Order: sequence, then C-alpha cells, then structure tokens
Amino acid sequence: MTSSDPLVARLRSALGDKAVLDDPDVLDTHRNDHATFCTAGVPRVLVRPSSTAEVVEVVKAAGAFGVPVVPQGARTGLSGAANAIDGCLLLSTSRMTEILEVSVEDQVAVVQPGVVNASLSRAVLEKGLFYPPDPSSWEMSTVGGNIATNAGGLCCVKYGVTSDFVRGLEVVLASGEVVRTGRRSAKGVAGYDLTRLIVGSEGTLGVVTEATLALRPAPEAALTAAATFLSIEDGIAAAAAVMASGLRPSLLEFLDGPTARAIQDYRDMGLPADVGSLLIAQSDRGPRAAEDVALIAAICSEHGAVEVAEASDAEESRMLLEARRLVNPAIEPLGVTLVDDVAVPRSKLVALLRGIAEIGTKYDVLILCPGHVGDGNMHPTVVFDRDDPAAEARALEAFGAVMELGLALGGTITGEHGIGKLKRHWLAQELGPVGLRLQREIKAVFDPDNLLNPDKLFL
Amino acid sequence: MTSSDPLVARLRSALGDKAVLDDPDVLDTHRNDHATFCTAGVPRVLVRPSSTAEVVEVVKAAGAFGVPVVPQGARTGLSGAANAIDGCLLLSTSRMTEILEVSVEDQVAVVQPGVVNASLSRAVLEKGLFYPPDPSSWEMSTVGGNIATNAGGLCCVKYGVTSDFVRGLEVVLASGEVVRTGRRSAKGVAGYDLTRLIVGSEGTLGVVTEATLALRPAPEAALTAAATFLSIEDGIAAAAAVMASGLRPSLLEFLDGPTARAIQDYRDMGLPADVGSLLIAQSDRGPRAAEDVALIAAICSEHGAVEVAEASDAEESRMLLEARRLVNPAIEPLGVTLVDDVAVPRSKLVALLRGIAEIGTKYDVLILCPGHVGDGNMHPTVVFDRDDPAAEARALEAFGAVMELGLALGGTITGEHGIGKLKRHWLAQELGPVGLRLQREIKAVFDPDNLLNPDKLFL
Repeated sequence: MTSSDPLVARLRSALGDKAVLDDPDVLDTHRNDHATFCTAGVPRVLVRPSSTAEVVEVVKAAGAFGVPVVPQGARTGLSGAANAIDGCLLLSTSRMTEILEVSVEDQVAVVQPGVVNASLSRAVLEKGLFYPPDPSSWEMSTVGGNIATNAGGLCCVKYGVTSDFVRGLEVVLASGEVVRTGRRSAKGVAGYDLTRLIVGSEGTLGVVTEATLALRPAPEAALTAAATFLSIEDGIAAAAAVMASGLRPSLLEFLDGPTARAIQDYRDMGLPADVGSLLIAQSDRGPRAAEDVALIAAICSEHGAVEVAEASDAEESRMLLEARRLVNPAIEPLGVTLVDDVAVPRSKLVALLRGIAEIGTKYDVLILCPGHVGDGNMHPTVVFDRDDPAAEARALEAFGAVMELGLALGGTITGEHGIGKLKRHWLAQELGPVGLRLQREIKAVFDPDNLLNPDKLFL
Repeated sequence: MTSSDPLVARLRSALGDKAVLDDPDVLDTHRNDHATFCTAGVPRVLVRPSSTAEVVEVVKAAGAFGVPVVPQGARTGLSGAANAIDGCLLLSTSRMTEILEVSVEDQVAVVQPGVVNASLSRAVLEKGLFYPPDPSSWEMSTVGGNIATNAGGLCCVKYGVTSDFVRGLEVVLASGEVVRTGRRSAKGVAGYDLTRLIVGSEGTLGVVTEATLALRPAPEAALTAAATFLSIEDGIAAAAAVMASGLRPSLLEFLDGPTARAIQDYRDMGLPADVGSLLIAQSDRGPRAAEDVALIAAICSEHGAVEVAEASDAEESRMLLEARRLVNPAIEPLGVTLVDDVAVPRSKLVALLRGIAEIGTKYDVLILCPGHVGDGNMHPTVVFDRDDPAAEARALEAFGAVMELGLALGGTITGEHGIGKLKRHWLAQELGPVGLRLQREIKAVFDPDNLLNPDKLFL
C-alpha cells in the first residue's frame, strides 16, 4: 500500500503495511475511549507497533512531523485520555501482548503493555500467584492502560491500586530515547521514584513499553455477605464499622437506594422497594472467611440492616455479588450517563451522599450512587434523557457540582478514572496554582515539545 | 543575642533567639548523620523552626543569602544525606513534633515531620491502629526523616515501606511557596504523583512540613520461628520456600555465618560454631500464627535446618528475635563498619552472597551479611581496623564492588538507606544517562537555584 501521506509512508516503510492504518472508517472507530461528553478529533493515522524498537520509530516519526501522539490501550478509560486529537497519530499497544515472564521465585511478571488484565491475572493464577488490580474493565482493559490511569477496582480496599504493583517500567520518551525506571527487587530507593510518576500520567510523559509487576501469593477462598438498609446513613455507618473493626475485607461495595431499585427493575434480585442502601462485603481469608462474614453480618445488623445474607460457599457468594455486577447494565437503559469518580475520607461519606442528593434535586436530574465505600471512592452517576438538551445542560452542571462538593469535603475529583479531557478544569482547582505549575514543568521535562497526548490533563 | 552575621540576625528576628543556634560546638555536633566515610562541612547556622510559616521564613532567608539548606531529622540516616555543607543552614525539624490528628474513622494520622517514629507508632496503637514502617532507628528517627529516605525496616516484607503509607504532604519549596500534594482519601489519581516523588527525595525537592499517613488496623499477636543451617545456600533456599509457600511472614531475617558467630561471641545465644546461616521468621496472624510458624519450621527442616525453634508465646518470640537485635552491638566491637544496602531479586540472593564472599577474599576484608531476606535486601557490612589505612582503602574498594555486583545481578545499590553523599557515584550507574538527566531536570523544576541539599544524590 502506498500513501500520499509522507508520515504514513515513513511508518509503513519502518513497520510494514499491517501495522499502519489510515482507512477513515478504521480511524473513526478508534477515536474515543468510553468517556461520555468528551470531544474527540479526527486522527491522521493509527499505528500498532509490536516492539519497543517500533515504538521508538513511531515516536521519532511523529516528532519529525510535529504530529501529536495519543497512546491507546483498549480504550476502556472513562475520562477521554485516549481520545484522538485532530491530525494525531494513534499509537495502539494492541499488538504488544506478550507476557514475557512470570517468576514464581521473585513473584514478579514482566509484560508488554497490550496484555489484557484478565489474561495476566489468569496466567499468574496458573502458577499460584495473584495480580490484584481488578478494574471493572479487567476482561478488556490492558495492563498498559491500567498503568496509564493507575486503575483501581473492587479489591483495592484490601490490596491497593495498580501503582502498588508496578515495580519498574521501560518507557519510550518523546525524544525517542528509552529509559528504564524502578527495579525488579522488592525494595529500592535509588533516586526519585520515576516509576510512580509515570503510573497514572495518562500517556503524557512517555509510552510504557514494558512493565515489571509485583505479584502476591494467590488468595484463599472468599465468602460474601450482603445487607440492605432503610437509609443511606445506616449503610455508610455499617461500612465504617466494618472498616474500623480490624477486619480487612477484600471487597466492600455500596449501592444507594436508586441504584438498588434500578437493579431490581432490571432483574428481580428480591430487593425491597424501600431499600435505602445495600452493602456487599467479602473476606478472602479462607478458613477464617466464614467467621469474618459472620462478624460483618453482625455489624450490619447492629447498624439497622433489615436483611442480611451470608454466603456459605462460592456459588452463594457469586449470587450476592450479582447485584454489584448488574450496576452498569441496569443503569444503561435509564438514559445517558455521566459517571463521576469522587473519593473522600470515609468520615465524609454521609455528607457526600446527602450533598449529592441535594445536587440531584437542585438540578432536577437523577443521580445514582454506587461506589467502593471502603475506599471512600464513589461513582455518582448522573442519568438523563439524550433527547432533552436542557436536561443535558443540567446534568453537566450537576456533574461539576459533585466534584466541587468532593473537593469541599477534603476529597479528590478522581479516585481511579483519571483526568483525561473530562476533568481538566477541576484538576487546576484540586492542585492549586503551585501544584499545577510543578506538574506542567514536569511534563515539560519529559516532553518539551508537548508531543505526547498534549490535550490531556492540562487545559 | 545579637550576631554580626546578618543571616543569623534575620533568622533570630523572625523566629526568636532559641530557634537559631550558631555556637560552634553545637554546630559541630550536628554536622553528621550516622553514615561512615561521608565528609561533612562546617555549617553556618542551625535553625529549628516550629511551624510551616517559620520554615517558609527560614527557606526564604537562606535563599536571600544564597546559603544552601540541609534539612535534618534525627540524623540517623546511613548515607550522609543530612550531612552539613560548608557554610550551610541546617534546618532541623526537631521542634515540629506534634501529632496533629489520629483519625480512627479515616485510619489516618496527620503529623509534623519531627515526630519520632516510635511516638507515632505508640500513639496510634493506643487507638487500635498500626503504623507499619519500622526502620531499626525507629526509637530515634523521625517521620520526616523516614519520608525523606523512604525508610524500610523489618516488617516491609509484609506491609511495605514508608512510601506505601504516605497519602499526602505539605511541602515548603525552595521558593518559599507551600504546596500540598496528594490527599487524605484512600485513593486518588488527580495528576502526577508528586507525593511519591517527594518521598525518598532526601530533602532535595522541598522541606516536608506535614504528612498525612495511612494507618492499618492493629496486627494480631505474632509468633516467631528461628532455624540454623550449615550453609548460606540452605538458609536462602528455606527463605525462598517460605516466600513461595503462600504465607506472608511479617518478618523474615537472615544472618550469615560470620554475623551469627559475631553475635555468639558477643553473647551466648547457643548458636553452634559451624553455623552457616540463621533464619528468623514471624507471623502476626494471631490465632493462625502457631500454624504458620509450624509450617515455616517444617519448611526449614525440609531445607536442611540443623536446629529449628518455634516460639509458643510472646516471650519466646522475643528471645528468638534477640539475635537479630544484637547484630549492631555485636558487630561494633569488631572494627569500623561500612554498611551496604543492596537489594536484588530473591532468585539472585545465593549469587549475591557467594559473590560477596569472593569480594571479601579478594580485598582481604571481613564482610558480614545480615539482611531482610524476604525482600532480597541485604546489608553487607565491611569491617576493618581503623588504624590500618591499607585496610580502609581495601574496604572502600570492596564496598564499591558489592554495589557493582548488586547491579550486575539486576538489583539496586540501595534498598532502603538512600543515596545521600555516599552512593552518588553509583547512582549515575544505576540510572543510566537518560534516567539521570530526567532526575536532574526534576530537581531543577523544584529547586532551580539548587538551594536544597545541593550536594546530595547527584555528583
């Protein structure tokens, strides 16, 4: 295939025809990630390198032509960080899918960035090991994308987020130089922690081409408990009591009443119509899980639970978790959704949820509130009718008001989804002028010509 | 007190006389941390601010006079990061000792940097909480110093290092500006992780004036096991098997034969003269600790342990840990020590220890090898006679050779002690030219005039 576009021609010559796509239909399907309300430009070319050396070629070619590079994993992100820029080069890691090593002795995995989270998780489990980060997208999202966004998930409450499992990285800089950060050993403090700086940087500092990940021994069997409450306050108080009890639940999820009702409407889970909140908790301490789950159930009862269910085996556990799994499919039919991601100190959760209810009333929109309550990380979801422009405007205002509320309560505008394009305005507010200046200057150290994902993070 | 030194006069006017010391004897006792073989300059003044506002005053005054600022905690560091520079201002956090808050609900503590680690640990334990970082210096070292060096300790093998417990910081920059990084909530991904960048930066990026620290529920009761082996290889193999077993020991320490013999010479612990290595492990899983310790003992026996002891209560556990506690006092009488801190992937530990023995032979020096074997972080300790200049020269060569070996084995020159002045030469080697350049440019973002600890980290 010859192309009249000299950048495309150069890339095809370096990487071969199959790695370089400029068909407008193909480009169009790769413009967006899963964020709603984020504009996306029209890309010039989509490139799928298969090695670090090829990524270097791609970045150098883009630099030579002054074409911005937008790195993409599986585009399951929720903040538009992978959205195209007009005339950009989309650098997809979809062909860099090799698990280079799983070491039982060192409890590490070395992977290319395009490995799907679930593939890695299953591969290490076969060797008796555990890669904990489990974003909801784990069956689709890539390790590279998880690193770019510092993805969280359900089991963070016990095990931490992606950055807690990244020991070292190989990164291609905007200059085309390759740098290795971090280490393979369990500990290391040689110089500034560039690894941690790059994790969560949303493709703005470099393109991750290899990651050395820490693994843990596989967890023991898990058991689940679920409890319904008449109010939000009771459910939050029960969650706080579980966290204060000394237990370390491996999952602690909260659904507010409207979310629980949406699920019940979607599929009969036996949830009462007057449910105020629903709490789902898990312990993965094997022989002690039953005792943990009994303690969680007792705590819920003490805090006014109207119904408490304790699983006694894996199948019952799965059934109790089903409500959590149905959140997205149950919400989808209700309308267009705008998913937020505020995180607050747990002591502020009641204030957050009350405030969100007031925001919903004020802007006359439905706001559902599921979330990772053990981490104080909620996903207030504004739902509205796409065909009603006035509702859309109110929804966007409500979305902003929720972030302002999170900040006012000492929290953050994003617990795990990132800034991308969606939250750039509020990032400045969260960081303040000095913090923002430092961040911009760090960006300039790594990428002085603003080549990598230049319209993300910062306005 | 009036002073002819205008900097001293300005500081006294701003902070009061007691906070500003320029007595030569006082200054002399504050020149060094605990590193051996690190030169230290003669400071111009020692300042002890008591608040963030005062730290701002101090940094601004130093900036106005172009005087380098060396931040100091308890000066228990082992790499010379707190060593004075000729004509510098020593900024001691020794009066910033307030624990501002311990929140049971949010499981966080907010502290000033001069709080001693042990004071914090005890204060949170009173509320049923746990601050895990436990460097050997914990009874003396400050939280601010632990943050500056990203200190490790014995329980890292299960709980991680200091940076794993730092959520947010307040930092005074070289400009005198105050920036808050991070968050109080459990999760947060708003922008680049400046918190993690500052942790471990050894006072070169800013002066930490407040830290928000994550806490955990207090651990359950712990039990200890200890085993002796005829060879280094058997002890390392047993340690590897413990880590691979799925257990998460809360402590896993290794002493090589020479270290064990030094301890036995210092105090009769019943260690046999032909001991090749000694392994000490702990489980803190309360009711399951006995079962864990029995499993550890069985693993040690399978790997050729000649003697295995399992504690059945806290007092026996304490006795088994005594050998580890005696490492420093037992080594001290042997001569001058040069303590290294290499960390390697666990699979390389046997190669590391064999290589160190060869280095000891080659340079004709005694090298003892205690270490945090579960993390692959060893403290090879070169011992020599101070009155023998030839031995000193050989010891320094051996010290360097150990770091080269660690790097050659895919490890790092420092697992937890940091670079300071001691290891600047090898830092360049570990990072490579691109990584080093990025680090220097990040330093310049935070501190363009090289005011803060300018002779540390980089040559």
